[in-house]
Amino acid sequence: MPSTLVVLDLVGIFVFAISGALVAVRKQYDVFGVLVLAGTTGLGGGFVRDVLIGATPPAALADWRYLLVPVAAGLVTFGFHSTLGRQERLINVFDAFGLALFCVTGALKAGDYGLGPVPSALMGMVTAIGGGMVRDLLAGRAPVVFRSDLYATPALVGGAIAVVGRDLGFPLIMVAGTGALVCLVLRLLALWRGWRAPMPAGPSSV
Amino acid sequence: MPSTLVVLDLVGIFVFAISGALVAVRKQYDVFGVLVLAGTTGLGGGFVRDVLIGATPPAALADWRYLLVPVAAGLVTFGFHSTLGRQERLINVFDAFGLALFCVTGALKAGDYGLGPVPSALMGMVTAIGGGMVRDLLAGRAPVVFRSDLYATPALVGGAIAVVGRDLGFPLIMVAGTGALVCLVLRLLALWRGWRAPMPAGPSSV
Amino acid sequence: MPSTLVVLDLVGIFVFAISGALVAVRKQYDVFGVLVLAGTTGLGGGFVRDVLIGATPPAALADWRYLLVPVAAGLVTFGFHSTLGRQERLINVFDAFGLALFCVTGALKAGDYGLGPVPSALMGMVTAIGGGMVRDLLAGRAPVVFRSDLYATPALVGGAIAVVGRDLGFPLIMVAGTGALVCLVLRLLALWRGWRAPMPAGPSSV
Repeated sequence: MPSTLVVLDLVGIFVFAISGALVAVRKQYDVFGVLVLAGTTGLGGGFVRDVLIGATPPAALADWRYLLVPVAAGLVTFGFHSTLGRQERLINVFDAFGLALFCVTGALKAGDYGLGPVPSALMGMVTAIGGGMVRDLLAGRAPVVFRSDLYATPALVGGAIAVVGRDLGFPLIMVAGTGALVCLVLRLLALWRGWRAPMPAGPSSV
Repeated sequence: MPSTLVVLDLVGIFVFAISGALVAVRKQYDVFGVLVLAGTTGLGGGFVRDVLIGATPPAALADWRYLLVPVAAGLVTFGFHSTLGRQERLINVFDAFGLALFCVTGALKAGDYGLGPVPSALMGMVTAIGGGMVRDLLAGRAPVVFRSDLYATPALVGGAIAVVGRDLGFPLIMVAGTGALVCLVLRLLALWRGWRAPMPAGPSSV
Repeated sequence: MPSTLVVLDLVGIFVFAISGALVAVRKQYDVFGVLVLAGTTGLGGGFVRDVLIGATPPAALADWRYLLVPVAAGLVTFGFHSTLGRQERLINVFDAFGLALFCVTGALKAGDYGLGPVPSALMGMVTAIGGGMVRDLLAGRAPVVFRSDLYATPALVGGAIAVVGRDLGFPLIMVAGTGALVCLVLRLLALWRGWRAPMPAGPSSV
């Protein structure tokens, strides 16, 4: 991977890891729990993707920087959680950057492993939202992504743009940038405007 | 796979996906959550099996029909959940068909990947009940299979019949049919008669 | 694997399986749920490790003894849970042996699959604590390891000693023994003294 992409990837992992560590603090987990939730939130989406597409062991287990970053994020959060916890808006914006980056790199990697455009876009979405879902399971709560403002859809759209664009022959940097930008803008608009996915109509009789 | 088996497989996925989507509606998830629970319930058991036996990427990621079916099931449920939710008995019967089919195809596939008869039967059971277990985890509840009327045992029996029969040299169509039929009958009897697995005796002192 | 190691491995699986079965009894699961929690607790850590490092199918699916042991542990617990449930202290001691063994064998196996020392030690820890985490998820509760007295740290230390020692050229039996012993002593001290990992300071503002 080009070094610019690696840096962006590590930034995304860092921000996701902070969100996991903050949830662990809120659940009154100890420092080990904070580090594990930081790690699984930052790296979990990529792990799930790599296991599903057969790219094992995941890259994060072969490159120490990928392990160092969530540890750093976890320790920072452990020490400064009360300051960080007040920056929810800022964290949401960074998180949107992570989402935008992961959906694109995840979808392109799935394409590299031979998946078609639809499953590749899906794997991009899994990469982007999977870490947060593992975080929520380990925190003993249902994944918030199912009830939050629009989160997974921007990731699906961004991933789809990247893989379809590459299949059509556009330059990699262009399709990756466009996919990430569209995902980012959609997610920020959703945050700003409170966009939500439609809810089921009427009472549930189940 | 012969096209008859593919059709049956897709029917099983469809029914399982509806059960996942109904749980999502009940949890008041948005349309995205409904689709994800439809997909994970319909495909999750096969994903877990394929990851464990090393058959990655799972077939469902290489064949768009396997992705389309749970999406269709999710959208139908999203629109008509109040009607569907009243058909619990009918859904349970269809679900029994899905169970019967998945335990057999799952066990046979595990055998194709070199597993012995006991682990293969176990993988058949995992294929059949795994989707529902993932559904329950993503819905933030303990898996119902641990407390329901007899559900996993029929799947284990059906899978065992299929792999043992094939090892003994009986024709594939015959062992698959017998395994599925036995699973189906056991499950329907369990539903009808309220059969349950034995519970631990006495109070739990833990 | 040498037969001594296999025996120790099976003992570890047995003890972990009992802890899973006891949780299932407490949750009033039926006999099937007891067996599944026995199996996933005894084997789950190794499964997660094997899936992550690409060693599929996991060894436990290729060797019937690895399946028989958790079934035996589950049935024993099903029948004698009220007696076993009163032996919490004894079970904790056995569990510490399982932890000590699994962290070492898990880390060494990850090293065999080409992982570096840091990820290998991490995989040792995952092997040792993963089964209990899966147990807790299937029991519908947040993993206790995040809030218990020191449990994961001894496993990380033990695994690190084993892989670093082997990389430095020390004999396998010596590094494995030292790693396991250090993990065991740390865990028993933590149990005895009530050692805990540090908690986040101050109120959580999240």
